[in-house]
Amino acid sequence: MEKIARQGLLYDFYGALLTEHQKNIYEDVVLYDLSLSEIAQEQGISRQGVHDLVKRCDKILEGYEEKLHLVEKFEKTKRLAREIRNLTAEFARTKDMNLVHRIEEISGEIIELEAH
Amino acid sequence: MEKIARQGLLYDFYGALLTEHQKNIYEDVVLYDLSLSEIAQEQGISRQGVHDLVKRCDKILEGYEEKLHLVEKFEKTKRLAREIRNLTAEFARTKDMNLVHRIEEISGEIIELEAH
Repeated sequence: MEKIARQGLLYDFYGALLTEHQKNIYEDVVLYDLSLSEIAQEQGISRQGVHDLVKRCDKILEGYEEKLHLVEKFEKTKRLAREIRNLTAEFARTKDMNLVHRIEEISGEIIELEAH
Repeated sequence: MEKIARQGLLYDFYGALLTEHQKNIYEDVVLYDLSLSEIAQEQGISRQGVHDLVKRCDKILEGYEEKLHLVEKFEKTKRLAREIRNLTAEFARTKDMNLVHRIEEISGEIIELEAH
């Protein structure tokens, strides 16, 4: 995964655990793609300060993922749901009942995954 | 939801963010259903100490859920996956193609939910 996409995903999940200040700056970098210089000027801190804060946030967010693995789990669920969607389209074309059984199995996998 | 079930669910999601000491005691209460007195004796702390620690952990875990809403989201995903599973069974019985379209829609809902 591209770094910026990974940062965005981690931020979606765990961003609420950052401070307001961290959130503002991290969003400027990761979501709004502003340059470090722009943000430094806007926030009245040094370019290095912005850089360090972003690194620190990366580390905090990766730390949560290392402990909780929720991004990983959500990604897996999404992949399984996409598979179901593809299989329904294939079924509409082929009317192969095996596909329906496969859909049933995959829905069971999602339930297990979410159940702990 | 019953309190103990809620505690177990929150612990599944966010328990890794507690300290080892908190985890040990919280598990004794929530997963192994030991009495406060038993735990107090085992841990060499007062019954009130165990009680306060559990309350504190409840608050920490609920605090994470208030910010992150991941239990809520996982519960919704699981509900949708169950719905898909039920619809496949119904389809096997009725061969009603509307059910396949409904399954396709629900898989899309899961993808949206997981996508942010």
